[in-house]
Amino acid sequence: MRTLKITLAYDGSDFFGWQVQPGKPTVQAALAEALERVTGASGVELPQGSGRTDAGVHALGQVATVRTASPIPAGNMVIALNDTLPKSVRVLRVEEVAEDFHARRSAKAKTYRYRVWRAGICPPFLARYVTHHPYPLDEQAMAEAARLVVGEHDFTSFAAVDAEKGKDDAERSNVRTVFASEFRREGEELIYEIRGTGFLHHMVRNLVGTFLLVGKGTLKPADLKTILEKRSRSAAGATAPAEGLSLISVEY
Amino acid sequence: MRTLKITLAYDGSDFFGWQVQPGKPTVQAALAEALERVTGASGVELPQGSGRTDAGVHALGQVATVRTASPIPAGNMVIALNDTLPKSVRVLRVEEVAEDFHARRSAKAKTYRYRVWRAGICPPFLARYVTHHPYPLDEQAMAEAARLVVGEHDFTSFAAVDAEKGKDDAERSNVRTVFASEFRREGEELIYEIRGTGFLHHMVRNLVGTFLLVGKGTLKPADLKTILEKRSRSAAGATAPAEGLSLISVEY
Repeated sequence: MRTLKITLAYDGSDFFGWQVQPGKPTVQAALAEALERVTGASGVELPQGSGRTDAGVHALGQVATVRTASPIPAGNMVIALNDTLPKSVRVLRVEEVAEDFHARRSAKAKTYRYRVWRAGICPPFLARYVTHHPYPLDEQAMAEAARLVVGEHDFTSFAAVDAEKGKDDAERSNVRTVFASEFRREGEELIYEIRGTGFLHHMVRNLVGTFLLVGKGTLKPADLKTILEKRSRSAAGATAPAEGLSLISVEY
Repeated sequence: MRTLKITLAYDGSDFFGWQVQPGKPTVQAALAEALERVTGASGVELPQGSGRTDAGVHALGQVATVRTASPIPAGNMVIALNDTLPKSVRVLRVEEVAEDFHARRSAKAKTYRYRVWRAGICPPFLARYVTHHPYPLDEQAMAEAARLVVGEHDFTSFAAVDAEKGKDDAERSNVRTVFASEFRREGEELIYEIRGTGFLHHMVRNLVGTFLLVGKGTLKPADLKTILEKRSRSAAGATAPAEGLSLISVEY
């Protein structure tokens, strides 16, 4: 048996997220099906992702691991998988890794990006990939608030209330370390990027929803500290829409 | 009655083209429905486009005209239409124009763009907007061939065999003038742009299909002259896929 590390990009618009769900198109199911077809093995193990992405969330560099008896060389596997997968999912790389390498458990850091389109009209070609917010925002205040979540914190205030559902048994704590949390402007686009050890379910979208309240003046940047301390989901802002979010990369 | 000139962008992926077709989603039908809702008038005249775009073809600057009794100012009309239309169609501008202005008959020139993705893997976020061609192409030869269609020519060899269907009564001739016809590279993208007085049904896609044969070495650049002279659809290459094509602008 070989362990393969598969790096993939996907447009999440047409999927019910990463995780297999009966009767619904998911990225994990599409990848599993492609692996079955390419390796000719039925009942292949489900590929394990670095984490689940929600319905509508995209990935530029999701990582999955799968164990297989197939002798197909990694390079050929890339071509064969892409011939089989829908165009909305592309395998970027396949690498043979140590047997105990695991996409989620071996991950050291992840980077997510959230895109907000600020102009009055959102081009139809971007509509699936950005959240449209053409109303006034104090972007300086948002940048200031974003910096306050850098470091090791208990992120319970930003965790989905259903957090247990998506959790690994080894990860009961809501403490995570954020290495970077920054806003930047690229033309009409306001871009938020966060890099950290790991993220609770809905954490990035709940952070963005809270930063938007700071942008609107409902909250002050310093309120982020209080919200973290409260360890209560109701202290933070609403969950920002899924379509603006992309998983950029996973580091090992 | 006022005549309104409406400039719009759309992602053609989810539509059966511009032109109204019973029981199918089309851009013209979506715009007509939005106009009915916004103006509160039932049985509004169908908006007339500068030309039909096929299923899957996109537009950055399609133009349509419509006659309406509605007193809504043009600026408010933009906002109201965009609130009503699906996100895949965006009204960019609404202008009040002379009563006899007509999106198709008043057009002086149009520009189309065709995008070809040359790298081995096509990012899922571009898959709806480009044609993927990762195989060898002599791009210099393609550029040379493209230049040979500049000028006034009978483009019968590049017209869909069903051309009568889509034609205005005043336009029986297949003679058109091409002002510019150029390939350029932007990173992994090979981009073809053509600007001319008007285009026959499938003309741009048939030109691109023929330039691809030049790129593959099946044809030589100079063959473009012979193909034009033959005035026969069978002399030219296959119709390139719709998804790479966008109507960029219409000049009046």
